[in-house]
Amino acid sequence: MLSFESDYTTGAHPRILQRLTETNMEALPGYGNDIYCESACEKIKKACGCSEAEVFFLVGGTQTNAVIISSILQKYEGVIAARTGHVSLHEAGAIENTGHKVLELPQTDGKLEASSIKHFIEEFYQDENHEHMVFPGMVYLSHPTEYGTLYTKKELTDIAEVCREYQIPLFMDGARLGYGLMSRNTDLSFQDIASLCDVFYIGGTKVGALCGEAVVFTKNNKPRHFVNLVKRQGALMAKGRLLGIQFDTLFTDNLYFDISRHAIDMAEQLKDIFREKGYPFYLESPTNQQFILIENERMERLREKVRFGFWERADENHTVVRFATSWSTTPEDLEQLRSIL
Amino acid sequence: MLSFESDYTTGAHPRILQRLTETNMEALPGYGNDIYCESACEKIKKACGCSEAEVFFLVGGTQTNAVIISSILQKYEGVIAARTGHVSLHEAGAIENTGHKVLELPQTDGKLEASSIKHFIEEFYQDENHEHMVFPGMVYLSHPTEYGTLYTKKELTDIAEVCREYQIPLFMDGARLGYGLMSRNTDLSFQDIASLCDVFYIGGTKVGALCGEAVVFTKNNKPRHFVNLVKRQGALMAKGRLLGIQFDTLFTDNLYFDISRHAIDMAEQLKDIFREKGYPFYLESPTNQQFILIENERMERLREKVRFGFWERADENHTVVRFATSWSTTPEDLEQLRSIL
Amino acid sequence: MLSFESDYTTGAHPRILQRLTETNMEALPGYGNDIYCESACEKIKKACGCSEAEVFFLVGGTQTNAVIISSILQKYEGVIAARTGHVSLHEAGAIENTGHKVLELPQTDGKLEASSIKHFIEEFYQDENHEHMVFPGMVYLSHPTEYGTLYTKKELTDIAEVCREYQIPLFMDGARLGYGLMSRNTDLSFQDIASLCDVFYIGGTKVGALCGEAVVFTKNNKPRHFVNLVKRQGALMAKGRLLGIQFDTLFTDNLYFDISRHAIDMAEQLKDIFREKGYPFYLESPTNQQFILIENERMERLREKVRFGFWERADENHTVVRFATSWSTTPEDLEQLRSIL
Amino acid sequence: MLSFESDYTTGAHPRILQRLTETNMEALPGYGNDIYCESACEKIKKACGCSEAEVFFLVGGTQTNAVIISSILQKYEGVIAARTGHVSLHEAGAIENTGHKVLELPQTDGKLEASSIKHFIEEFYQDENHEHMVFPGMVYLSHPTEYGTLYTKKELTDIAEVCREYQIPLFMDGARLGYGLMSRNTDLSFQDIASLCDVFYIGGTKVGALCGEAVVFTKNNKPRHFVNLVKRQGALMAKGRLLGIQFDTLFTDNLYFDISRHAIDMAEQLKDIFREKGYPFYLESPTNQQFILIENERMERLREKVRFGFWERADENHTVVRFATSWSTTPEDLEQLRSIL
Repeated sequence: MLSFESDYTTGAHPRILQRLTETNMEALPGYGNDIYCESACEKIKKACGCSEAEVFFLVGGTQTNAVIISSILQKYEGVIAARTGHVSLHEAGAIENTGHKVLELPQTDGKLEASSIKHFIEEFYQDENHEHMVFPGMVYLSHPTEYGTLYTKKELTDIAEVCREYQIPLFMDGARLGYGLMSRNTDLSFQDIASLCDVFYIGGTKVGALCGEAVVFTKNNKPRHFVNLVKRQGALMAKGRLLGIQFDTLFTDNLYFDISRHAIDMAEQLKDIFREKGYPFYLESPTNQQFILIENERMERLREKVRFGFWERADENHTVVRFATSWSTTPEDLEQLRSIL
Repeated sequence: MLSFESDYTTGAHPRILQRLTETNMEALPGYGNDIYCESACEKIKKACGCSEAEVFFLVGGTQTNAVIISSILQKYEGVIAARTGHVSLHEAGAIENTGHKVLELPQTDGKLEASSIKHFIEEFYQDENHEHMVFPGMVYLSHPTEYGTLYTKKELTDIAEVCREYQIPLFMDGARLGYGLMSRNTDLSFQDIASLCDVFYIGGTKVGALCGEAVVFTKNNKPRHFVNLVKRQGALMAKGRLLGIQFDTLFTDNLYFDISRHAIDMAEQLKDIFREKGYPFYLESPTNQQFILIENERMERLREKVRFGFWERADENHTVVRFATSWSTTPEDLEQLRSIL
Repeated sequence: MLSFESDYTTGAHPRILQRLTETNMEALPGYGNDIYCESACEKIKKACGCSEAEVFFLVGGTQTNAVIISSILQKYEGVIAARTGHVSLHEAGAIENTGHKVLELPQTDGKLEASSIKHFIEEFYQDENHEHMVFPGMVYLSHPTEYGTLYTKKELTDIAEVCREYQIPLFMDGARLGYGLMSRNTDLSFQDIASLCDVFYIGGTKVGALCGEAVVFTKNNKPRHFVNLVKRQGALMAKGRLLGIQFDTLFTDNLYFDISRHAIDMAEQLKDIFREKGYPFYLESPTNQQFILIENERMERLREKVRFGFWERADENHTVVRFATSWSTTPEDLEQLRSIL
Repeated sequence: MLSFESDYTTGAHPRILQRLTETNMEALPGYGNDIYCESACEKIKKACGCSEAEVFFLVGGTQTNAVIISSILQKYEGVIAARTGHVSLHEAGAIENTGHKVLELPQTDGKLEASSIKHFIEEFYQDENHEHMVFPGMVYLSHPTEYGTLYTKKELTDIAEVCREYQIPLFMDGARLGYGLMSRNTDLSFQDIASLCDVFYIGGTKVGALCGEAVVFTKNNKPRHFVNLVKRQGALMAKGRLLGIQFDTLFTDNLYFDISRHAIDMAEQLKDIFREKGYPFYLESPTNQQFILIENERMERLREKVRFGFWERADENHTVVRFATSWSTTPEDLEQLRSIL
């Protein structure tokens, strides 16, 4: 069945499978100490213009969030995040499972605002009882957000400045980073992100890999004995080559960016189709996830022919649904959708 | 200096010290297995009209919250609480330290509403991805709340019904329970609380004891191997007699209720004084904590002569401050305050 | 360079890569809800003769141990393991990170004995203070063990009986299960294991897969909301297909068993070579890992031409080293080793 | 009934109750910020000859161990302890509950040896896989030990040197410190302990207080935001005065040492009685706990007239039992015991 359900329904970009096959019989050291991890690391450092970056490969997004947050925070600290953030809502309490509180702030279209972060931290320090409260120890944001929205360069710079002022690291969840970087409506470059964030990750799972997220520490700030902390969380992959080869391929000949741009092109065409057919948008997303407001009856009929994501009930009669494109969406898929609609 | 800073500035009710002294040389078993713990337990069961209750004594409030919540919740569950709840804000992340998320809901004057709890749980189960979310596993509320407010019998009954409907326990933090029960504006009896809540505790620390909170499981629902779970949290007192003797004294001859009523009488006189002197109240509290709105300059002058609590900034020029009475507040204290004001 | 360093130095069995490629463009649901996971599950149930088994796929061994142990244990319980067990020594404290103690017992050649488990549990219950101690809540063993040794049917049956007697589950870490099942010196069948253990896992990472461990709950005992517990540990793979397709392939046409038998054949030839060359064995292993006692100088020279694992210092002048074969070891590799030795 | 069951069966030294009563109505700040905590702190610093010490008061032993160990260790570290150590065996997994492993070493009469600690750490760093293992991050020992034995100055100095060499802190559990310091067979002074240990605590619960342990950080090494870490563990006492006043009293006019010496005098007389009556000792303890080997039948008869502690079964017919003296043991108690025996 036609599927716009998510950006992780198909396998890997064919070039990745090809490279896995070509390198399959090489005997390589485990745990990320192989030449492909090393090569991928170098390519990523170059791509984001951060020569002193330290790169580490993990398997999935929730795992990466839990590992990074718990390895950076002090025991008396929590992580600031939007109330709709992935770590706040959709990770089954993985952060709390590491003993740390998610300090949830209000958001707009999935985004945190520098001013509200600053206000929160100031209130914290003004509170006479703040020694009895969880210290704000880092800022988590996702780019694109859970709503497909993007931070502008100004917005991210402002947040980074608040972080610098209070000396807490800024962490960007880039599970869909490629789609953010290749959006037609962004002034944030890969280099900007590496420069403004203290740590971020480059999503593979949702951008053409079978699995894998590339964590980038940008300020000589990789936590001490990080491999141990990864292992302790059960997140160290024995055959690290699986991650290294995938990211090495994605960062060869611009593949990561090309396939992300393709997904954006498909998303823009998808938006045109929905506009053309008179469907209202729940919000304006400049990336690969589109949120449509749809009558419940119409939704049920549509569901028989195409798969898409349920987002939330809008009112008695309407629902917000999500259509996602990806590196593997084809113009044929879109044509088929158009004729169904 | 005259102090209305909190309800835990003085020691214990003299009768407690007297009993500690009288029983001091008796050789008693440790860990709560002594006759005084047993006697206190029986008196509490009788007082709350719950013959099948199981009572356990712990040292302090945050400890009690962490022990109860972590020993009742399943690993996939979190606890629903008001965003202003003590477990949400002022326990240094003690709940998250046990691996569980506090699911924070909006509140009114410190209180949760049955409808918002019900709405939250319904939304949770309607979410297609709820297996990726923290399950609502219990409801925490405090009575009196952090703002000194009280639930009505109707409000608590409604919340209890939501809990029964979704089969999650209702837990009441009664750190100041005595002041709630003896308020002039409450229709909730001790028996109602034992009947509506699955577990609650009777605060000693803030109501005349040196330390101690009496946990009451009302529905044959004391967690298995509870002593072990208490020990594991570092909360098991070797000389359990210290807790048993205090609660045995508090629940002899109505002492707990008498000293709580005294504090309420003092609070009502305190309110009269502030009203008389033209100070506005931040909110109407029917218990021993009073929240006054005061000009910053005036506050600074007042501070030189009397101790009170800072609550929060109201605006540029005004602050919300807290005056608390307790079992040990005297009419002379109030006279002195009146003349200072 | 020639490598006998471990059984996870090469990629995946070629048939796995072929199936990943063939199925690559199919749009499949995530998180293990795809047809390949389902199919693999059915094949595994059939292969181990346990029709009521519940199968779940995870990524790596440490992760699997932490997820299973923490999702089965009650908060007051710990897991019994050999002092040399993987969970005791080589997982960076991943079990303790979930809040549970590893109750370490003495071992012989990496194996636990039923009598020492029984003795330990009896002593525990006889201790008057056992409410202050960690309850023995499950037994963990690995088969093959970290030393490549195997439990006999009698030994495993005896351990299972102790577990039944005290009503605690028996958990087998089968990271190298294939090599155990295909050993020439074993009377334990796959069916025996499914029948004797309450939960076990079938290692993929070390037996021909890129990654993946198949957890099998055999007694209708999958923990409630297991997906949530997996997610909470950061262990839920978005593209579950990667695991499903691999195990589906491994359990098609006996592949898992055939490649395991091949590794055993290679190991037996390896043993012959070492015997022939006069190297003493540190212990007799009937599986794919061989532990050789070697003079330090000789070891250093050998290291220049072949990779192998350091195990432990034996004395001033000797070291125990490990040579591992795998599904990908070739007769040519062995010939090359023979000529080097 | 006559009781030698433990050193925490009676209440507090009468002078403590007297001081609690005298100071009862003073309005004091909470959480350890009162003048009695301050005064006690100064007296302790003076008594142990460590002017830069930082002192903090907690309620009980297990709590103190968990707070100190978890607030000092990095996430990748565990604590070295004797296999018979209190943190290893009798704290219901309180240390593991904070996410840290207890690295258990063999012991002799309850004591660790410097050489075995050194050997363990060396082996750890020599292991090629030590990044996959729990790092040794501190040494825990108790003095007196669980067996009532004592470290000599030489032994403790040797252990401290190993700690310095590997830059890990040395932590002494002094739950019964008074009895150790006043033993007739010790060359370790209070000053030695403050100088050799990085952190230790002075037990109150078992040495004349109702509750309380005084933690002493000796090297300007109190963990950052320690109050927050204490609160997070649920260990912060609201009425800190209860702890401050008790320790202030214990460290006034040598009370702590005098009552400890009394307990030792009583223990020596106890030993004489047992020797006189022909009971063999399980081991030689120079402190207030005595371990006697007794025939089971005789034990049962004795039990009818005097309370003592069960320690462990020695063989089919004999049991090791514990008799403890304390500050409150009287010559009359001993006379009574003599006539019973």
